[in-house]
Amino acid sequence: MTELLSWAEGPTKSAIVDFVDRVTTDGPDFVAPEARVAVFDNDGTLWCEKPAYIQLDFLVRRLAEQAAADPALAATQPYQAAAAGDLAWFGDAITKHYNGDDSALKILAGGILSAYAGLSVEDHADQIKAFFAEAQHPTLGRPYTACSYLPMVELLRYLETNGFTNYIVSGGGRDFMRPVTASMYGVPPERVIGSSVGLDFVDGQLKTTATPEFLNDGPVKAVRIWGRVGRRPIFAAGNSNGDIQMLEYAGGGTGPSLGLLVRHDDAEREFDYTAGADTALGLAADRGWAVASMRDDWTTVFD
Amino acid sequence: MTELLSWAEGPTKSAIVDFVDRVTTDGPDFVAPEARVAVFDNDGTLWCEKPAYIQLDFLVRRLAEQAAADPALAATQPYQAAAAGDLAWFGDAITKHYNGDDSALKILAGGILSAYAGLSVEDHADQIKAFFAEAQHPTLGRPYTACSYLPMVELLRYLETNGFTNYIVSGGGRDFMRPVTASMYGVPPERVIGSSVGLDFVDGQLKTTATPEFLNDGPVKAVRIWGRVGRRPIFAAGNSNGDIQMLEYAGGGTGPSLGLLVRHDDAEREFDYTAGADTALGLAADRGWAVASMRDDWTTVFD
Repeated sequence: MTELLSWAEGPTKSAIVDFVDRVTTDGPDFVAPEARVAVFDNDGTLWCEKPAYIQLDFLVRRLAEQAAADPALAATQPYQAAAAGDLAWFGDAITKHYNGDDSALKILAGGILSAYAGLSVEDHADQIKAFFAEAQHPTLGRPYTACSYLPMVELLRYLETNGFTNYIVSGGGRDFMRPVTASMYGVPPERVIGSSVGLDFVDGQLKTTATPEFLNDGPVKAVRIWGRVGRRPIFAAGNSNGDIQMLEYAGGGTGPSLGLLVRHDDAEREFDYTAGADTALGLAADRGWAVASMRDDWTTVFD
Repeated sequence: MTELLSWAEGPTKSAIVDFVDRVTTDGPDFVAPEARVAVFDNDGTLWCEKPAYIQLDFLVRRLAEQAAADPALAATQPYQAAAAGDLAWFGDAITKHYNGDDSALKILAGGILSAYAGLSVEDHADQIKAFFAEAQHPTLGRPYTACSYLPMVELLRYLETNGFTNYIVSGGGRDFMRPVTASMYGVPPERVIGSSVGLDFVDGQLKTTATPEFLNDGPVKAVRIWGRVGRRPIFAAGNSNGDIQMLEYAGGGTGPSLGLLVRHDDAEREFDYTAGADTALGLAADRGWAVASMRDDWTTVFD
């Protein structure tokens, strides 16, 4: 799977192949292998983020458990919505956030932050593995572990074969993604950068806390790529407004670079939406970012 | 250099070799290569930290520059001490900190934090490279780049040859170490964890700020190993009280592990001190940590 077999011939595939050829061929655009750093957003770029973030499904199940155990909690949000299976409440909270209204997101954040407080990082990972072992996408009829985009997994392998090192740089939870990134993407835990809560070190063990640490979105993605990698990437792939700065960072060096945006325009095979992605897509032509139309550029979406 | 040629035969070398043999040999203690994570403190563990931290020398030069450019600054600490070459003032600030008095350290921290504010991370790295290209250790008669301990560099190579992945986990500055860790230790920038200030993302560039982010010491080392690596190490090496939790973390898993402390007891070839290390050394026997006596266990100290 080191060829881009699920990519249709066209300008987007050509932009990728031409870029990789240039940086791997002796000449003015050659980039040493250790500097071939590629960064990928996850939700909506590597795996499906609709009708709701996969992590939200995991969270809602936990909040419903907490509501069932505590009637007082069950009368408040976000537990009430979780117990009622009212996923729209959660989607609205995120949509409002992207429209500048953080009121519901703050309520949701409180629930998110306290959902796993006190768990050891290993026990937390075990819960996540158990979730992925059985949870199914609500409409696509496949397990979440089969909701990665085949063309993007091919792209990860293609870059790797060409000496690149791939990192995931997501607004999703660092510790939520890590248990599955190796099997789904071939990206090990040390190359997963995501949002996080603080950890406490107690008696030789690390415990999850309710204190937010990083919300890995927008300019924070650029800052944390440097913090984790210590190099500026030369390739960045995203799909939403929160990826703009990461693509700008990858494109802001002195050598060759490529930015790629996934455009969700395939209601038949996946979803068709631009909410939360309009600014990024609007910048693409000006910034020289390639755009992968799911409908036109991908011959297959899911494996 | 994949053998421990500069290590004297004895219980410390045996503890290392036995541990590596056990985790790499089929049997109950076998550890898969991807889980063979080793973490190393830097100051006093991989390179010399006396008579002052190498980073302090770099900083004092910068503070002296700032003092020369601004007489008002020059009348205050830490600029006054820097301009006068009064390194004892800086050493005292750190000694007081380890004795529970942070008054001078706070003044020093203000100077540290603002010393590079506004510089791009690339320009900051260039200044560090220029420093290491010419700076000499004040008493050992060798460049700082030759102040790494040969036995520890041999240990890094030995572990690597046996399938381990080495990380540096230091209280020193992440971005201060990165420009030299590949050439001095064979550890690339993405495997350097250290203290840091925040960064701003401006016009596609990352700029150093004066806002502290992480003081990578004590329990923070354990927390940040997970944050960066996503695995519990099975080998940890340190030399001071700030490394206790890192060694406890490495030793707190369910499988085999080894902790190693470097003991500075060689006034002839390096330095002889236990200040800041007494608690750690006192715990070694109880915790089963190996102790490398510089005097007795190392046949050569510097290359």
